[in-house]
Amino acid sequence: MPLNPADDAFAGTLAQHLPEDTLRRAEPRYLEEPRGRWQGSALWVALPRSTDEAAIIVRACNDASVAILPYAGGTGLVGGQITEDGPPPLLVSLERMNAVREVFPRENVLVAEAGAILAEVQAAALEHGRLFPLSLASEGTARIGGLLSTNAGGLNVLRYGNARDQVLGIEAVLPDGSILRGLKRLRKDNTGYDLRHLLIGAEGSLGLITAAALKLSPVPAGTGTAFFTVPGPSAALDLLALAREQIGEGISAFELISRTGLDFLTEAIPDQRQPFDTPPEWCVLIELGLAKGLDPAEALQTLFMEAFDRGIVEDGLVAQSEQQRQDFWAIRERIPEANRVIEAISSHDISVPLGLVPEFIDRGAPLLAAIGPYRINCFGHLGDGNLHYNVFPPKGGRREDHYDQREAIKRTVHDLVAELNGSVSAEHGVGRLKVDDLERYGDPAKLAAMRAIKAALDPKGIFNPGAVLRSVS
Amino acid sequence: MPLNPADDAFAGTLAQHLPEDTLRRAEPRYLEEPRGRWQGSALWVALPRSTDEAAIIVRACNDASVAILPYAGGTGLVGGQITEDGPPPLLVSLERMNAVREVFPRENVLVAEAGAILAEVQAAALEHGRLFPLSLASEGTARIGGLLSTNAGGLNVLRYGNARDQVLGIEAVLPDGSILRGLKRLRKDNTGYDLRHLLIGAEGSLGLITAAALKLSPVPAGTGTAFFTVPGPSAALDLLALAREQIGEGISAFELISRTGLDFLTEAIPDQRQPFDTPPEWCVLIELGLAKGLDPAEALQTLFMEAFDRGIVEDGLVAQSEQQRQDFWAIRERIPEANRVIEAISSHDISVPLGLVPEFIDRGAPLLAAIGPYRINCFGHLGDGNLHYNVFPPKGGRREDHYDQREAIKRTVHDLVAELNGSVSAEHGVGRLKVDDLERYGDPAKLAAMRAIKAALDPKGIFNPGAVLRSVS
Repeated sequence: MPLNPADDAFAGTLAQHLPEDTLRRAEPRYLEEPRGRWQGSALWVALPRSTDEAAIIVRACNDASVAILPYAGGTGLVGGQITEDGPPPLLVSLERMNAVREVFPRENVLVAEAGAILAEVQAAALEHGRLFPLSLASEGTARIGGLLSTNAGGLNVLRYGNARDQVLGIEAVLPDGSILRGLKRLRKDNTGYDLRHLLIGAEGSLGLITAAALKLSPVPAGTGTAFFTVPGPSAALDLLALAREQIGEGISAFELISRTGLDFLTEAIPDQRQPFDTPPEWCVLIELGLAKGLDPAEALQTLFMEAFDRGIVEDGLVAQSEQQRQDFWAIRERIPEANRVIEAISSHDISVPLGLVPEFIDRGAPLLAAIGPYRINCFGHLGDGNLHYNVFPPKGGRREDHYDQREAIKRTVHDLVAELNGSVSAEHGVGRLKVDDLERYGDPAKLAAMRAIKAALDPKGIFNPGAVLRSVS
Repeated sequence: MPLNPADDAFAGTLAQHLPEDTLRRAEPRYLEEPRGRWQGSALWVALPRSTDEAAIIVRACNDASVAILPYAGGTGLVGGQITEDGPPPLLVSLERMNAVREVFPRENVLVAEAGAILAEVQAAALEHGRLFPLSLASEGTARIGGLLSTNAGGLNVLRYGNARDQVLGIEAVLPDGSILRGLKRLRKDNTGYDLRHLLIGAEGSLGLITAAALKLSPVPAGTGTAFFTVPGPSAALDLLALAREQIGEGISAFELISRTGLDFLTEAIPDQRQPFDTPPEWCVLIELGLAKGLDPAEALQTLFMEAFDRGIVEDGLVAQSEQQRQDFWAIRERIPEANRVIEAISSHDISVPLGLVPEFIDRGAPLLAAIGPYRINCFGHLGDGNLHYNVFPPKGGRREDHYDQREAIKRTVHDLVAELNGSVSAEHGVGRLKVDDLERYGDPAKLAAMRAIKAALDPKGIFNPGAVLRSVS
């Protein structure tokens, strides 16, 4: 069944059923994305103020077979928020539904609308002495609806899980315009299929999330942060295992950084201070958040000493102040910035089973060297087995000169990931970028079930057509 | 489309495609359930030794339109494992697929077949110095497949989450006989819809889970257990909030027990020692599991003193030995046993938002008193907002004499739960017992989506027909 465009005629008719100024012409900011790989085609954006208005919009689109493109912070890296092909969709942005509706400190629950910005949700939780642990680079602009639709990961997954693990309930508009009233504040609810987890991570292809009941966690009483240099990725894993034995669940983040990453900082952002005089081949940034009665700096010291005795760390720096802690994190957080300056030929957001990370790193480098003299900046969330594995031209080279190898590079990396039973999209999602990869590497039974579910819940295929699954129309 | 029976002719044909002794006549143990409310009709049980054999069985059933009843430990309380109506189904038990396939200590992952018994999985994890935190009364017989299919809860949900939260990946046979190869050991994998969470909690109505990759947690360095008496449920919630402030994530269990529960123990199990000389109106059993460097007994002492100053606890006992700890837990764990002796008219497994637990308890008693002079044993997982709210005849009375009020009692309790935005099945599932309740209290949009998903994945309706959703054939 072909889709119809969300053109002026459609927008004009829909506008009659909604308060003034609910529909606007789509400004350029809705049609761009961070990496400049896609250019959106939407003509109109709908800006509902309530779930009921959102339902009116969805119902009208379904009746008219008009595509809907749910739009949140716009920071996604895989094109899930951009439609290039097919008739222009109606962009639906929940930026006006950005309230933290209620906080229930005694329940450790916060209810937010899907347009709420992550940093504001974090702040609202903190005001009540609670932690909303989801944290990532774009937290100042990313919105709850987008974070849930993409099941965002970030820096604290090791301890608190992914975005989906922070959610007790969701409210959503389903493709037929019905409202899923699942905003439960319950820790236990076994009444039927878990539609919450189906919509979370569906990248807007099964419905429009309008609000969520989110779990809050205790704020750790004390935080400690350190850089430890390690002989290599395998030692880093041993360090993580040792840290878990000594410290239990108190490890909040465990990030791997390679010499290439530190060199890239020097090259692209020379004013960024480095933690070590001589950049080590490998180091980890480790953060602890401990309960009352424990001293994080002391715990890091004890960890270092034992790890040093075992030969799995070589040098270490424990942050002595909040300023130094922020300086440490700046190293980690500015690596993507340096990457953007140097410009990768191909970037990969992959995960493998934790124990296979060293094998992946060991085998990846020579496979790529066989294609060309590339530089690999491999960094990221080692504690989750999730690496950002980005491939760059040789020093002084331009990425444009290597575009003919882009597909071969990607294929080499993803083939190795698949061989190791990993994921070619660990935290960024499938979007439009990885539809082919999903078809190539995905489990056929899973894909068939996904297509059946999509057809069952969205028979006209109006929700984010072409994202996650190839458009059938 | 009507289903066909798994009769001798069908079993004879299917047996030809499988190794000897894969099919057996169903012994009575497969046709009974703990509360004696249903009597199964299956004639044959299939006992596959591998996922491939399971797939052959499912495919044959799908081809012949024969119903499949996945069977695990058989301890479910809502009849999910029993088919009374319709043509006899083929019972499929994975009791021969009971291996812990592999343990990955460095990854904190354990891969188990669906027939593995929970206690054996716990033990395998402990052998590697890791904790598999799912824990419940039937852990000596419950199997992983059943625990996941019902998204079991239990004693440690407050800290570690429900069964679904312990799962990184699953392998399953889908209704068409295809094998979902989702046994990923990944913390992050955003490649398409989360079928794992759809099958978990589907109570065997969408496919047959054959294996799972399970998350392991650190074993807490020290455990502390205490009974605190509290003025009432609201004070118990204040105590929980205070404990979270002082102890953070270290609270493993927080169970509420009422005077009725303690009286029931005296009445039904007189040899069971009681913690307090005079049974308090309300008490909580609290357990901490703390990291190295913290003293749980000291933490409980500090908590008690601060709580006593605030008037939210009245008396307290901290276990001084492992034996005393086990004695404390015996109180909690023998309450269901006492309930079985005294015999409830109606039992309810409900949850409400944590902050509304006191309101639920306050309002429930007079509503039931208006129906009759019943005794209410309200106990359970307060930390999760999950109460087992069981209604008994007056002392000396027989439940049979009150059966005419059973429906009114259930309706009163469930109406109140629904009004408070709770769940009428917190941890036991829908099974056959609560299909009506799901239709009455469930969100219509959710039910419609569930039916669409069921029809899409299991178009012939062969998987556990009549469980969760009313059978359409």
